[in-house]
Amino acid sequence: MEAIKLTARTSTAIRVARGGALQVINTHGSQVADTWAVLQGDPDHGLSMEHTRAIHGRLHVRAGDVLLDDRRQPLLAITEDTSPGIHDTLIPACSAARYRELGYKGEEDHDNCSANYGHALTSVGLPVPARTPSPLNLFMNVPVDIEGHFTFAAPVSQPGDFVVLEALEDVVLIVSACPQDMAPVNGESQEPQDVELRVYNPAEQAERKNS
Amino acid sequence: MEAIKLTARTSTAIRVARGGALQVINTHGSQVADTWAVLQGDPDHGLSMEHTRAIHGRLHVRAGDVLLDDRRQPLLAITEDTSPGIHDTLIPACSAARYRELGYKGEEDHDNCSANYGHALTSVGLPVPARTPSPLNLFMNVPVDIEGHFTFAAPVSQPGDFVVLEALEDVVLIVSACPQDMAPVNGESQEPQDVELRVYNPAEQAERKNS
Repeated sequence: MEAIKLTARTSTAIRVARGGALQVINTHGSQVADTWAVLQGDPDHGLSMEHTRAIHGRLHVRAGDVLLDDRRQPLLAITEDTSPGIHDTLIPACSAARYRELGYKGEEDHDNCSANYGHALTSVGLPVPARTPSPLNLFMNVPVDIEGHFTFAAPVSQPGDFVVLEALEDVVLIVSACPQDMAPVNGESQEPQDVELRVYNPAEQAERKNS
Repeated sequence: MEAIKLTARTSTAIRVARGGALQVINTHGSQVADTWAVLQGDPDHGLSMEHTRAIHGRLHVRAGDVLLDDRRQPLLAITEDTSPGIHDTLIPACSAARYRELGYKGEEDHDNCSANYGHALTSVGLPVPARTPSPLNLFMNVPVDIEGHFTFAAPVSQPGDFVVLEALEDVVLIVSACPQDMAPVNGESQEPQDVELRVYNPAEQAERKNS
């Protein structure tokens, strides 16, 4: 097992072999982790929120679910989730434009998950697509009412809550500790926090599942 | 005004200048029209369902809404909608893989909106991206319950109902008359139908809005 401290506002890309897994630990309890996956052998294709929603007939994913890629192939499985299970599939990664909408006036762009996605891909030598795919927003709380209206609320997860994503193909997983500090996405305090990642090889993940 | 009959199961790409508009007429009342837009000057970028949902805080769009691109710029506006206003932003374009899931066994792929998107782009000399962006599924009825579960229901639109999309930039609009005949997406009869398109230049659209 390899442990990685993902610093608040930053991202990383991790190669995970088929059968291996990534554990995303919400160390402080209130931090959203934007998460993507692309195929190691065909990185133009990867995790798709829209195809995953459609196959399950649900806006949200939960433990036990298989997550599909954009060609509808099984790519990941949620094998564990100790949080209340509130995650988002509807909202795009935050971007420089989003922070300007919220009133950010800096000369340089605000840190953002779209840029973080590009940085992480570049760090492992992968091309950056023109459009950032919709991420799986782990721990993000976007309650939807019966009329389809939604809000951006603080996470309901607790310190130490985690999700385990098992790779069903050889993938590159990308995680961004969301830098949102102008809305309660990362908690009422609006302070982005670190996240801990643990990477399990296939033998270690098999042992997790059997224990 | 230019009128185009879009044959059931097929697609087309139409250049619309800023200020012009496309009217999508549900001739038979029950036909879903998967609709996309890309910028004429930068076709790697275009209409984004995820950014449009996020800016409005709603799963669905309606008359009066501005629709954003993936860089959060206003791209289209829904200036008219004579239907009950039930359209979908959640579901990806149907694909060859989707029909195989539903039991299709043909040697060749079933007609599908993802392939139609590519055909339409190619027809106007534009590149086809690896991933098909999520379309605006005009007239598609995907009711969502309070727990976030949804179903694929028959449209509630009536023959002759239409939507007008005004271009806020110079765009290429792509429309696919969805070939879904294995689920009630295009009505309980599951028979894909033609759609009529009308293209208005900026002067004609200005006149529509002022009349």
